Amino acid sequence: MERIETHAHFGGTQDVYTHRSETLGGDARVGVYLPPQAASGPCPVVYFLSGLTCSEQNVITKAGAQRYAAEHGLILVAPDTSPRGEGVPDDEAYDLGQGAGFYVDATEEPWAARYRMYSYVTQELPTWVDANFPTLPRRAIMGHSMGGHGALVIALKNPGMYRSVSAFAPIVAPTQVPWGHKAFGAYLGSDRETWRSWDACELVATATEQLPLLVDQGTADSFLDAQLQPERLKAACERAAYPLTLRMQPGYDHSYYFIASFIGEHMAFHASHLKGG
Amino acid sequence: MERIETHAHFGGTQDVYTHRSETLGGDARVGVYLPPQAASGPCPVVYFLSGLTCSEQNVITKAGAQRYAAEHGLILVAPDTSPRGEGVPDDEAYDLGQGAGFYVDATEEPWAARYRMYSYVTQELPTWVDANFPTLPRRAIMGHSMGGHGALVIALKNPGMYRSVSAFAPIVAPTQVPWGHKAFGAYLGSDRETWRSWDACELVATATEQLPLLVDQGTADSFLDAQLQPERLKAACERAAYPLTLRMQPGYDHSYYFIASFIGEHMAFHASHLKGG
Repeated sequence: MERIETHAHFGGTQDVYTHRSETLGGDARVGVYLPPQAASGPCPVVYFLSGLTCSEQNVITKAGAQRYAAEHGLILVAPDTSPRGEGVPDDEAYDLGQGAGFYVDATEEPWAARYRMYSYVTQELPTWVDANFPTLPRRAIMGHSMGGHGALVIALKNPGMYRSVSAFAPIVAPTQVPWGHKAFGAYLGSDRETWRSWDACELVATATEQLPLLVDQGTADSFLDAQLQPERLKAACERAAYPLTLRMQPGYDHSYYFIASFIGEHMAFHASHLKGG
Repeated sequence: MERIETHAHFGGTQDVYTHRSETLGGDARVGVYLPPQAASGPCPVVYFLSGLTCSEQNVITKAGAQRYAAEHGLILVAPDTSPRGEGVPDDEAYDLGQGAGFYVDATEEPWAARYRMYSYVTQELPTWVDANFPTLPRRAIMGHSMGGHGALVIALKNPGMYRSVSAFAPIVAPTQVPWGHKAFGAYLGSDRETWRSWDACELVATATEQLPLLVDQGTADSFLDAQLQPERLKAACERAAYPLTLRMQPGYDHSYYFIASFIGEHMAFHASHLKGG
């Protein structure tokens, strides 16, 4: 692993690393914020999964999360959104290929060998984080848009791994919307039955564990009606008696201006569930 | 004027405008944050001047200042760092021409016609702001690096215009360092005597008004020794008995990670001086 950026930030350190990922078959970039508390003892970890076109840079430069990570003593880990680099398949579109891994393990060519963000985020990344930073065995996960989908799906598929989950403007039903149709068709193939295990609304129905779940959605989000449709998650949670806090935020759009406005509340939400043994 | 961006943000609105600037001879871009309090009454205004290579975008997306503007009820105005667009002279270097106006009124060719950021920031911009937004006649000014130089020089040259001034890693003595030599030589010509009226350390010596003045400087700033030299400001303020709060921040660099870490304190500093009639 190599540390390619380091910045003092809110009394702690915002670093960016590249490390060799066996899962992704190449180097992966990760932002790691260590709060001041990490200098004197282990801290819980919050994972943030980013959206389409993003890398680790967007959230670490624009969300303002580190202020709250420092306040609550939380390590904040922000992986990239896909494999990158030489030999990694790509597509000209912004919503497929590099920057658009959708946090699945692809089964179709040419994606299957490298597009394995699900296994990376759930296995290799936390192992690497726990091996290299002063972590407590307490995790939360959150994300934005495609990364909100990733956070929800990953939390629901891995009972016991996270204590809480939250999302900003998540894609809650990828099997039902154009972004999901395109990405899942490419990465998972044409058999839509296989798609269901990567859809938060489907997974809620069969969840064996109920995690604290917070979702914020702006009402002025240009992707709201066509791609996001949070009412589908609301209905699925109601059917499954899965507790959901869904907040429609009047006038907010899909940008980091929206995320920054509420990330303090998300960090406080996670901090409250990450406290204690 | 045209509003080219608008985002709900911390209960207020982050907008970006272009407006026709007579001073700059073309369209100018400005970021304007209106806090929630501006919906029900006029608010004081904080001007933020950005550094080399920046536009209005850097501070409005990375500094996290709006959270505090919303808390204190302050309008935050962030102009671009130079004229831009067709017909505007430029240079290949990052530290001359577009993105590097240095907040002076140029006297030399080819810069003199358009590079008039000093007159723009001190006259046309506040007139435009006051005409279009619910402002109180109370202003503060702050900036980063080249914009810290701009904030200091503008405050010192305009007694009565601002109630407080602050800077992150400012160029305090442009007549004494390479960035200033290059820019002032190009914009102001070879007669170094004329440069002195654009140098904060020179202006402090003859100041007729003492403003609350706060400067933060990171000790890990890679420009510290060659370009910034805050000890020159400290010495000039001591000689002039001009009150200065200069804080050396251990381990911080020149980036927005540094700015974001302390901008809450700068906004609170300005808010305390902008209160009351």
